[in-house]
Amino acid sequence: MVGFAFAACFMMLLEEVLSLIELPDALAAQLASERLDSLTKPAGSLGHLEEIVRSYAAMRRDPEARMGRGAIAVFVADHGVTDEGVSAFARAVTAEMLRNIARGGAAISVLARRLGYLLRVVDVGVATDTSGEALPGVVYRRIGGGTRNFLRERAMTLAQAHLAVETGINVARELVDAGATLIGIGEMGIGNSTSAAALLSALTGISPAELVGRGTGLDDAGVRHKTEVVTCALALHQDSRSSAQALLAALGGFEIAAMAGVCICGAALHVPVVVDGFIATAAAGVASEFHPSVAKYLFFSHRSAEGGHALALEHMDARPILDLEMRLGEGTGAAIAMSVIESALALYRDMATFAQAGVSGKLR
Amino acid sequence: MVGFAFAACFMMLLEEVLSLIELPDALAAQLASERLDSLTKPAGSLGHLEEIVRSYAAMRRDPEARMGRGAIAVFVADHGVTDEGVSAFARAVTAEMLRNIARGGAAISVLARRLGYLLRVVDVGVATDTSGEALPGVVYRRIGGGTRNFLRERAMTLAQAHLAVETGINVARELVDAGATLIGIGEMGIGNSTSAAALLSALTGISPAELVGRGTGLDDAGVRHKTEVVTCALALHQDSRSSAQALLAALGGFEIAAMAGVCICGAALHVPVVVDGFIATAAAGVASEFHPSVAKYLFFSHRSAEGGHALALEHMDARPILDLEMRLGEGTGAAIAMSVIESALALYRDMATFAQAGVSGKLR
Repeated sequence: MVGFAFAACFMMLLEEVLSLIELPDALAAQLASERLDSLTKPAGSLGHLEEIVRSYAAMRRDPEARMGRGAIAVFVADHGVTDEGVSAFARAVTAEMLRNIARGGAAISVLARRLGYLLRVVDVGVATDTSGEALPGVVYRRIGGGTRNFLRERAMTLAQAHLAVETGINVARELVDAGATLIGIGEMGIGNSTSAAALLSALTGISPAELVGRGTGLDDAGVRHKTEVVTCALALHQDSRSSAQALLAALGGFEIAAMAGVCICGAALHVPVVVDGFIATAAAGVASEFHPSVAKYLFFSHRSAEGGHALALEHMDARPILDLEMRLGEGTGAAIAMSVIESALALYRDMATFAQAGVSGKLR
Repeated sequence: MVGFAFAACFMMLLEEVLSLIELPDALAAQLASERLDSLTKPAGSLGHLEEIVRSYAAMRRDPEARMGRGAIAVFVADHGVTDEGVSAFARAVTAEMLRNIARGGAAISVLARRLGYLLRVVDVGVATDTSGEALPGVVYRRIGGGTRNFLRERAMTLAQAHLAVETGINVARELVDAGATLIGIGEMGIGNSTSAAALLSALTGISPAELVGRGTGLDDAGVRHKTEVVTCALALHQDSRSSAQALLAALGGFEIAAMAGVCICGAALHVPVVVDGFIATAAAGVASEFHPSVAKYLFFSHRSAEGGHALALEHMDARPILDLEMRLGEGTGAAIAMSVIESALALYRDMATFAQAGVSGKLR
């Protein structure tokens, strides 16, 4: 750990972080189970909240399941595949929404404020460079001015994919340094549901027709066209499925790669990551290809109404916390789920035990 | 309204309150829809949260969907049917848990504190009278020292049922006077899942075998016995299905009747009521028998893991906000759902519109 602490002063490297990942602490989960059963409630009656507490305790290696800060990292980037007319909104909306998030008017801005979460907005490759605009709270870690059109060529180089993942790792590390013990991941990027559908199809084997959704609001013809684009792109990049990094480079986005980096870093640093919806799930899927234990440090926040998100979650054996038919992105589902996780942790820490409260236990 | 305001100085009467109930305001819902579509997000992408906003605006007759205080009313009472051995916990636990709630150690105490909700705990008929114990925050509106055993006789008199409903009405009125614009209902009462199963079966026609659950933790034999008790009680009180009040008197509980009163008063005063789980749903069902429009002022907080709650919700055409397999009661599911409702309202009020944020709209 000394070597690790030393290295952390510099940029954390992907390979180094991957080598730190271990399984969650089964003993902490066991101790949490025992405490849960001692609390003044029928055994198991908090349902999924109890599972959340056990998982959090195990991930944090902390039987007390203490909560520090909640943080949300929103990565923003553009996608070359928008050239194919796969989105109901113009590419310029990515930069417009970056400004909106920064100025507090976007959905995630409202939720982070209301729920008290640290919001970190990161431009990892928006087509329009807004770094001269002094947008409050935006961090610039631009890998480029958007990816290339993956229907024609790889979305990015292998080096860019690597750098984007490491960018996510470093953002996560900074949030952990700021006290975060729970990190939500979200995104904004016109065209990124096309990239996510392609990645999820490659990762799960589920067909594009089952995965592709309306994104920001395509009509039926738009969905058919988007499905064709994904199908053709998968055929074009068939050789890129050999590694997670190659897959990201071929079909990913800078923001998706960065979110994968957060998932990887969370696993390494024992900080649970709360996965937002369709696009964040693609990132989580890719992260799990980098290291299979990454999945054990994730909470899936909600079942999105976008495309085949429900199918993808099933394939990943993920049980989402919420099912509100949301499909907005930005980390909005993650934020609401984080509040539920915090409620579960508060119950665990603050409820009285049967002994403390003088409440009689079960009869038989 | 002058007469109403005058009457409100005194105890509000059931008949008077019922006469005030009108349909929610469709225009407010329409205006809310229009504003939702102007916000910087893909149309409809907040899913169920948008439906929540529209409903809240309509119930409140307020297109701005302003939120005042959130309040949770927890009614506590004992049940004579516990003589039949229908619960895994002893009847004495009701009073023990009343003390635990008052002292801050129960699940609902923790959640109300964490989420900032006004918690009103009302003893409407616990077997042990704790009114001399100076329990913080507990209000005593005792209808009796528990109901009678409804396997042998009616649980309460018609007059008691009436009084219990009016007690709930008055508690709701007090909370509204204190600024509440959203009221969660919860309960504690050993034996009350038996009463709720009987009521729900009578109201919906769903069989006891499908409705009866494990309550606080019965084993299979216990569930079989509890199902027999419910089946026999339904046969005994077959003649009591003529009116909501008679049904409550025959098979109800003081806390269930009081929760029904909150639902009725919420509808009359345009204050949405958030229904907790299995037992609160029985109260909501009874309240809707008093006046069919009551149902239009309810949010169903969660799908409980208790017995046939999912079936009952389906029968009532109710779409719960959460599905966390909780079955604790006390208003715990309501509290967490209220926080989701508040998030929905915050998004509605605080998000920027496309025009305000200078974000381009949909292409086509």
